[in-house]
Amino acid sequence: MPREDRYDILFEPVTIGPKVLRNRFFQVPHCSGYGSERPGAQAGLRATKAEGGWAAVSTEYCSIDPESDASPRISARIWDDDDIANLRHLCQEVHSFGALSAVELWHGGVHNEASESRIPPPAPSQIPSEHYYMTTPRVMTDEDLDYVRSCWVSAAKRATAAEFDIVYVYGGFSYLLTQFLSTYYNKRTDRYGGSFENRARLWLETLEAVRSAVDGSCAIACRISVEALSPAGIHIEEGLRLIELADDLVDLWDVNVGSYLAGDSGPSRSCPENWQAHWAHEVKRHTRRPVVGVGRFVSPDIMVEAVRSGQLDIIGAARPSIADPFLPAKIEQGRLDDIRECIGCNICVARVSYGLNLACTQNATAGEEYRRGWHPEKFSIARNAESDILVVGSGAAGMECALVLGKRGLRRVHLVEMSSTIGGYVGRIAATLPGLGEWARVVNYRKIQLEKLKNVEVITRLELDTE
Amino acid sequence: MPREDRYDILFEPVTIGPKVLRNRFFQVPHCSGYGSERPGAQAGLRATKAEGGWAAVSTEYCSIDPESDASPRISARIWDDDDIANLRHLCQEVHSFGALSAVELWHGGVHNEASESRIPPPAPSQIPSEHYYMTTPRVMTDEDLDYVRSCWVSAAKRATAAEFDIVYVYGGFSYLLTQFLSTYYNKRTDRYGGSFENRARLWLETLEAVRSAVDGSCAIACRISVEALSPAGIHIEEGLRLIELADDLVDLWDVNVGSYLAGDSGPSRSCPENWQAHWAHEVKRHTRRPVVGVGRFVSPDIMVEAVRSGQLDIIGAARPSIADPFLPAKIEQGRLDDIRECIGCNICVARVSYGLNLACTQNATAGEEYRRGWHPEKFSIARNAESDILVVGSGAAGMECALVLGKRGLRRVHLVEMSSTIGGYVGRIAATLPGLGEWARVVNYRKIQLEKLKNVEVITRLELDTE
Repeated sequence: MPREDRYDILFEPVTIGPKVLRNRFFQVPHCSGYGSERPGAQAGLRATKAEGGWAAVSTEYCSIDPESDASPRISARIWDDDDIANLRHLCQEVHSFGALSAVELWHGGVHNEASESRIPPPAPSQIPSEHYYMTTPRVMTDEDLDYVRSCWVSAAKRATAAEFDIVYVYGGFSYLLTQFLSTYYNKRTDRYGGSFENRARLWLETLEAVRSAVDGSCAIACRISVEALSPAGIHIEEGLRLIELADDLVDLWDVNVGSYLAGDSGPSRSCPENWQAHWAHEVKRHTRRPVVGVGRFVSPDIMVEAVRSGQLDIIGAARPSIADPFLPAKIEQGRLDDIRECIGCNICVARVSYGLNLACTQNATAGEEYRRGWHPEKFSIARNAESDILVVGSGAAGMECALVLGKRGLRRVHLVEMSSTIGGYVGRIAATLPGLGEWARVVNYRKIQLEKLKNVEVITRLELDTE
Repeated sequence: MPREDRYDILFEPVTIGPKVLRNRFFQVPHCSGYGSERPGAQAGLRATKAEGGWAAVSTEYCSIDPESDASPRISARIWDDDDIANLRHLCQEVHSFGALSAVELWHGGVHNEASESRIPPPAPSQIPSEHYYMTTPRVMTDEDLDYVRSCWVSAAKRATAAEFDIVYVYGGFSYLLTQFLSTYYNKRTDRYGGSFENRARLWLETLEAVRSAVDGSCAIACRISVEALSPAGIHIEEGLRLIELADDLVDLWDVNVGSYLAGDSGPSRSCPENWQAHWAHEVKRHTRRPVVGVGRFVSPDIMVEAVRSGQLDIIGAARPSIADPFLPAKIEQGRLDDIRECIGCNICVARVSYGLNLACTQNATAGEEYRRGWHPEKFSIARNAESDILVVGSGAAGMECALVLGKRGLRRVHLVEMSSTIGGYVGRIAATLPGLGEWARVVNYRKIQLEKLKNVEVITRLELDTE
């Protein structure tokens, strides 16, 4: 089934500096727990999205130097030339599916527990992290500023050697560049503190240095949280001023809101789809560059509206791309009822915040593409496909089990449920609670899929005993 | 200066099965945070101890299968043949200093959060971990028991391929073999539950299987916590019975007490040096094999007494070997006042419990032997050795700084302190608190070392200002 015409706009190419996105779908940076030290798992995760139609996929935050050490959380790292090979593997796998690869170069400033490097994190002023317990930075000297600029340059050069197409200068969240811009973190009295121009200086210098280092071989993306939603970060007026000031140095603005204290990865309970529209519209009025933004986009109609209304040029997604790596392909193929929609439960974020690899309530294969060879859309015929199978209980796990068994071609799959409706705890209880309506997607997606499988029979109101 | 005669006994060789320890010093298994995935750091840590005179050094717990997955904590792993190379590197580095290498093969049973493998941990009965939040096991079937025995065999064969000299069957703490032996964890009604003989069956079968797998090429060590000091583990009568029953299958008993709930790595505040003597004496009366035990040994006289009294054949150490990797060498060379004594503060344990690499209050080089090229005893001449240096403040950090600068040959090092005594917070406050007397070792060790350095001058009662 071809896609409907009204979605054509989502499949227009977009030029960003020297590169062209094949469509408007962009997997913006998100953590995986694989960093650069689990190259197979990292490449498997991102390449599956490239296969699923995303025009570009990015790494998570990628530390440019041991001075910015996220451990015990896991970032990617591009600390020295030995890190290139692992990241190049990701790029090559992603390229094989026709997508661009991006790396989110990152310096976290004060927000580094540095449990591995044990280097006191550098920051504009000695303001403790408002997020990480007991993390107090050292004030950066002129030599430190020289050093951090040289780290950005080295990292950008390594990124080109790793064959990345897009190099991020990560200014968002409340990391180093934002710390300099923010009057909350920056109490300096030298030429990097005080006036807006002074506070913006390091950000502009960094963009210039990175731009010069890649010398036209990569597009330069800049991520900015234009509104911190808390005292610790940027406020919208200064965020927009920064965008205007830096516009000539940037090929793509990646815009979001929030900081460590609020707003990032808003759960479905409090943040509806496209809840950041207001800020993206503001940004679009202050830049001549393409803008990518997020908002847990899963509905193609909302995506079209975001583009048509001048809110965004590119549909960014982190969590929706985890829940359904094939979201763009399914829209393109007119298979809207096959979309596995993100429920905004944030187990992905919760696990990576604890130093683990990600997991997803909706997509059991997420993160297991390489290690276990799982694919979200392709299923091999089971060795015992001639068998009949009984699945007892139709909660989320039972439904998923019946679904996979059905797709693996078992002769007959009987999904038996003692109550009158399927869906178990999630469907009958969780999704009915205030603000948790999106969680019903766990049940609805599987119900629709089960109905399509001729070899699966769902039987309700049947209580089994051990006989 | 040669060692005193009364310490000769510590340097006698000890035969364990097919192998010979060159003396009575044994670095028993302890965590590092390096596992098998940081082979350079792991080998550097252990090889430095081999260089410092330990007759044998061991890895930390080394998982035999993804079913026993300690993540987010870091164990070594010997899951498949690809893990052999990294562990062989450790063995070869250790052997180059004339020491034996040991691997602590491990299955944790219920005590596995399994955050990476996401496999529900197997255990004798469905008793949740008393330590890890939300970890409930699945009950092992006959097939599971076959499988776990096969894992021990595969792991043991890989250990010989990695060139280990000593293979541990880790039964201690409250891991799988103890879970079978303990009536707290084992509620089975089959031939692995009920009577003592039934509960001991898996332990004996495992020893037999591992012994057969290594076929005389390695010594077999068995670690047992003979007294759990809590309801969740073994009690002394059954611990001793197990030792009698398994004595012919074991070349070396590694004995300690405690479990997840109590006793392991007793801090100095509550556990004095050689506090486990009572239990080791008991064990020695029930075995014909050599026994190694621990008790934060740092005093050679207490070590001699432990051997002469028939308490131990081999002096085991984990924390003291971290605080001073050269402890045996310093005793042998009669340099007793150079020993950097463990203070029992447990920052090493605390960090690795959090998934990090270890660190040590007494030995700043611990864990940095490979990555930073730091050595606890060797110091290169500084490039600016012609300089004079001022160190302000004589707390632990100031003393260590002056010490290292002195050893690196700076022309003059001035350590200036405003109060009348050196030692800062640790010396003046912490070490005077009830039970924290051992912490004074931080100051005393450095004071003695500073006095030996002709190029270091300590100046007290001098307050400096910015002029």
